[in-house]
Amino acid sequence: MSLSVMTTLNITQLNASAADFQQHLKLLLAFDEKDDLDIQHRVLDIIADVRKRGDQAVMDYTNRFDKRNVSLASNLELPKADLLAAWQTLPTDQAHALQIAADRIRAYAEHQKLQPWQFTEADGTVLGQKITPLERVGLYVPGGKAAYPSSVLMNAIPAKVAGVDELIMVVPTPNGETNAMVLAAAHLAGVDRVFSIGGAQAVAALAYGTETIPAVAKIVGPGNIYVATAKKMVFGQVGIDMIAGPSEILIICDGKTNPDWIAMDLFSQAEHDENAQAILISDDADYLLAVEQSINKLLPTMERADIIKASLSTRGAFIKVANLLEAAAVANSIAPEHLELSVENPEALSQHIRHAGAIFMGRYTAEALGDYCAGPNHVLPTSSTARYSSPLGVYDFQKRTSLINCSAAGADSLGKIASVLARGESLTAHARSAEYRIK
Amino acid sequence: MSLSVMTTLNITQLNASAADFQQHLKLLLAFDEKDDLDIQHRVLDIIADVRKRGDQAVMDYTNRFDKRNVSLASNLELPKADLLAAWQTLPTDQAHALQIAADRIRAYAEHQKLQPWQFTEADGTVLGQKITPLERVGLYVPGGKAAYPSSVLMNAIPAKVAGVDELIMVVPTPNGETNAMVLAAAHLAGVDRVFSIGGAQAVAALAYGTETIPAVAKIVGPGNIYVATAKKMVFGQVGIDMIAGPSEILIICDGKTNPDWIAMDLFSQAEHDENAQAILISDDADYLLAVEQSINKLLPTMERADIIKASLSTRGAFIKVANLLEAAAVANSIAPEHLELSVENPEALSQHIRHAGAIFMGRYTAEALGDYCAGPNHVLPTSSTARYSSPLGVYDFQKRTSLINCSAAGADSLGKIASVLARGESLTAHARSAEYRIK
Repeated sequence: MSLSVMTTLNITQLNASAADFQQHLKLLLAFDEKDDLDIQHRVLDIIADVRKRGDQAVMDYTNRFDKRNVSLASNLELPKADLLAAWQTLPTDQAHALQIAADRIRAYAEHQKLQPWQFTEADGTVLGQKITPLERVGLYVPGGKAAYPSSVLMNAIPAKVAGVDELIMVVPTPNGETNAMVLAAAHLAGVDRVFSIGGAQAVAALAYGTETIPAVAKIVGPGNIYVATAKKMVFGQVGIDMIAGPSEILIICDGKTNPDWIAMDLFSQAEHDENAQAILISDDADYLLAVEQSINKLLPTMERADIIKASLSTRGAFIKVANLLEAAAVANSIAPEHLELSVENPEALSQHIRHAGAIFMGRYTAEALGDYCAGPNHVLPTSSTARYSSPLGVYDFQKRTSLINCSAAGADSLGKIASVLARGESLTAHARSAEYRIK
Repeated sequence: MSLSVMTTLNITQLNASAADFQQHLKLLLAFDEKDDLDIQHRVLDIIADVRKRGDQAVMDYTNRFDKRNVSLASNLELPKADLLAAWQTLPTDQAHALQIAADRIRAYAEHQKLQPWQFTEADGTVLGQKITPLERVGLYVPGGKAAYPSSVLMNAIPAKVAGVDELIMVVPTPNGETNAMVLAAAHLAGVDRVFSIGGAQAVAALAYGTETIPAVAKIVGPGNIYVATAKKMVFGQVGIDMIAGPSEILIICDGKTNPDWIAMDLFSQAEHDENAQAILISDDADYLLAVEQSINKLLPTMERADIIKASLSTRGAFIKVANLLEAAAVANSIAPEHLELSVENPEALSQHIRHAGAIFMGRYTAEALGDYCAGPNHVLPTSSTARYSSPLGVYDFQKRTSLINCSAAGADSLGKIASVLARGESLTAHARSAEYRIK
């Protein structure tokens, strides 16, 4: 009898020692974002229109999509006094929590700052690398129900720690409604200007600039499919952060954490949306049963039970492994966004983890702590992209410039080498340019 | 009388103090890569076919496009003995030059390695960042006439310094012909495996893997429009380096460098291709005239005179500025790939440069030295993307993972903060997961 028939929730059960495990795992992880050609065409049109008509196009789309009535572009900007007022009138517990979170995010980010370096060779030639912050950055913040002040802190604070001169936030305000906690977070994070616009029109305005909205060098922050499509399309004109897929958590547990805790940790991922993915791995089959019982016990008590149920039943899984080393191997093949090591010795196990966005170590480190206030960024590589990419950080708002300063002696010896290689590539102007510097 | 009528080459002349300067500069820099829908469809088909038919599709395309006759997929791999043989039979001067270049590129790259860090808070909570090299990387190397051994070194060496386990090179061999210097460079740089394939089919094989060609985590290296299009399309499945536009040089000269040197430096960029961009800025109008005379004197002696002429007359420019500070401001608005500061005090001027891929400081530092052997990478951000991006480096082959290990006391205090913020965002599973860890 399979575990699942005993439960109301039908969670996929896999065993890592089964011959077809990798095949089943691949199917479980597969998530095809369909390229919606219709959306792409609509977004292309909006971008072209904003480039052509500037402020007027932005106002037209904003009035239409956000049901507003703006006729003066300068009215798209929220006064800084509104941000301060939002902060000052926030309930004390929320203000305190935001302040602590901001302080911790900043303290962690400070460790990420890139430093310039240079060295001088024996012949006097100097080589190095200069570090410069981006000049102006755009931060997209979703409006409406998915308004997350934590996301404002996580995106804005690393940019300011990097030394970005001007951080421009855009946030749609459907029917003119603002979210006080989002504005308070913007104040706290040091956002310089806020425009009440959203969608593809906001991305286009930030990428190309209008009469009122200044063009930025990079756009970060989450958004819906229109925003994500627009960001992909303006990439190259500006830098962008990653295009995030559905959020994921992978938990490895040795069977000794309270099963209610692990059930709730799985829920905390699953409640994001139906496509979120929550997977539990254990070497203890009885423990997997216990967590399943906790899930069925706790699910009816959850506000977002429907979303959680849909997520866990379509994309969730329990994986039985022979031992924790096998669990680490499975984790590496998944390359999860969030990895909880709910085990006795998480440091030892973490040595075997090669691919993950963030590792939450030990039974006390709920992923939710990292989502809000532990310090590290909650913007993390999804969909196995942890194989090649990193959490959002200060380094995403700084850039490097190579420095080369050849002495006469250095140019002489390097010129001879460059000449041989350039002629080997039939690039004779390169060769002759180098040869002029040979004594 | 404008300068240009005295010359055979009609180079655009701008004056930074003219009212319409920014407008003219924008036109000069504009470079629209047309999205060729036909190429996109063909590349999409090739990728889909390689995903479906694997080795057989790769062999079919290779036989067709590269005029080869491969019927066994294992024959697509070049034996490592061929690389060693290419190295051992290379003329001594070329082997010496490659060796020096490789040593210098490696020495510079060593400075770029990211280091892990962690710190422990008063309550015992540990935060940190783990650094992991990418596991397997693909390096695309163009075949035929544009075969650049320097490019093999510049892409492969930072990957190996980063600690990449397996570096897979692909290089098309039209009619079965290989380039000895390219293979020698691959040997020297420590490339692990080489497949004689190219085009979109090679990119698809690296991104998705076939029976014979292993899937990689990231693909780097230059290629033609088919390769660039394929790289864009597989992005997300794998990481990619930047999609490079035409190469550019901007030279700021105070009028005291031998004008022949500066003319040749401009040529060394212009000879790459007709779309390459070479711009000279000076505060000395007479000097601009002198360089123009050098250009006309030297141009007839150049092997690639036609390409140089096309490049300089369509995309080249001379810009007169009032002083060197204004030159730095113009440079920042261009954000050039290569910036030569051919001035008396390049260190002082470089302090005013905010956006550039690499800065070549002083009269002896020809850009060509940096292309081959100075040490810093020659893969640099083009088309003003130096506003937000960096040279290729070791850091492109390493990734970061956040580490969070909360003590019981830490989880208690952080849990209270997370609970408030999560409830503020109506994410109650997050809140309850955190609350379980409160004492």
